[in-house]
Amino acid sequence: MRPSDVTDAVFAPEVPAAIASFLEVPSLLEWAEAAAADLPSLLIDHGNCELKAASTALALLHRYAQHEQLVWRMSRLAREELRHYEQVRKIARQMGITWRTLSASGYAAGLRAEVAGNDPDKLVDTLIVGALIEARSCERFAMIAPLLPENLAKFYRGLLASEARHFQDYLNLAEQIADTSIADRVDELRRAEHRLIASPATQIRFHSGPPIACNVGPIEQASRV
Amino acid sequence: MRPSDVTDAVFAPEVPAAIASFLEVPSLLEWAEAAAADLPSLLIDHGNCELKAASTALALLHRYAQHEQLVWRMSRLAREELRHYEQVRKIARQMGITWRTLSASGYAAGLRAEVAGNDPDKLVDTLIVGALIEARSCERFAMIAPLLPENLAKFYRGLLASEARHFQDYLNLAEQIADTSIADRVDELRRAEHRLIASPATQIRFHSGPPIACNVGPIEQASRV
Repeated sequence: MRPSDVTDAVFAPEVPAAIASFLEVPSLLEWAEAAAADLPSLLIDHGNCELKAASTALALLHRYAQHEQLVWRMSRLAREELRHYEQVRKIARQMGITWRTLSASGYAAGLRAEVAGNDPDKLVDTLIVGALIEARSCERFAMIAPLLPENLAKFYRGLLASEARHFQDYLNLAEQIADTSIADRVDELRRAEHRLIASPATQIRFHSGPPIACNVGPIEQASRV
Repeated sequence: MRPSDVTDAVFAPEVPAAIASFLEVPSLLEWAEAAAADLPSLLIDHGNCELKAASTALALLHRYAQHEQLVWRMSRLAREELRHYEQVRKIARQMGITWRTLSASGYAAGLRAEVAGNDPDKLVDTLIVGALIEARSCERFAMIAPLLPENLAKFYRGLLASEARHFQDYLNLAEQIADTSIADRVDELRRAEHRLIASPATQIRFHSGPPIACNVGPIEQASRV
């Protein structure tokens, strides 16, 4: 049963069914509206997320180089994330956005904090977390696209399919590598993801929670609509 | 003037002129012969080097994300290194080589130890070191190709052009970013590279020095021919 704070929220129609049934809650419209009103923060943080996704894939490649199937999927995934990064940079440049340093939201770090300390659980957890981040990204692209300028909306709709594919890749790998069913662990991590994505945030980020207007400086303006 | 220990060595005919004039010394034939006799070590370490090159490019992307030109070159370079990694893995699999953990040679770490601690020197040094590693890799592909089985020789000859391009990319970026001429610094780092690549080694690696036969176990067999 979903907590009372999100009973009104529904998944955007473009969210693939597999993603909607995997995530515990849809994002709140407040996030999408605030993010659409602060495109520099949204785009720069999105770019940083693509880079981090590539770095995570590379770290897995290094650490689990003996695992043939993981190696192939992670190497291709890293290349794809880097292509997306380049596309984000290109669009940001076209929109006249000056790239700047931006602190990360606590979302990915919060999920990483849930990962078990030792293998094989560590690897399985990392892969489930990867699936959750890809699923959430896919959901957010679908949700925010209607609020964005045409070029950016088109780009984000184009990313839906690849994020959904990456979600499935991570999940399949987790299932293959785990000795037993991962259903219970997915449930636990899904609840942690719900908690993180629903945490009110003072800064607009790609994976930030619903914005609160306090403590925002001129650069990190939450821009509530 | 070249030191007396390498006066007999010459660059392989396939080494591009720009690379031959950039490096202080050619590799010794002893390395190529020993490496060709231990293809598992050569290929696995080569794969690890491609991954590390991608990781280095990603680290630069993260750290210097405001530098537009660096960003484009490093992102594309990382994707290309990952493609090469996949190719190495594919050939290793075709040759029946089981991927295993392999310690790195001291070559890249030795070069990184020469890098200045603070920017802008740190970035310029890192880029010159990148140019040196790409140049040496190019030279070694050319040198060892004639000693390898046909499929591997063809692959290594195919990599020559991209390594030469990466070398030039790194060098151009270093020149653009430095305020003054980098010629003296290139000379210093080139001498460090000479010292590292000429250091006798007990294990066969892509960037190891001429092999010495002592202290080699069954797995790390130097296999002097």
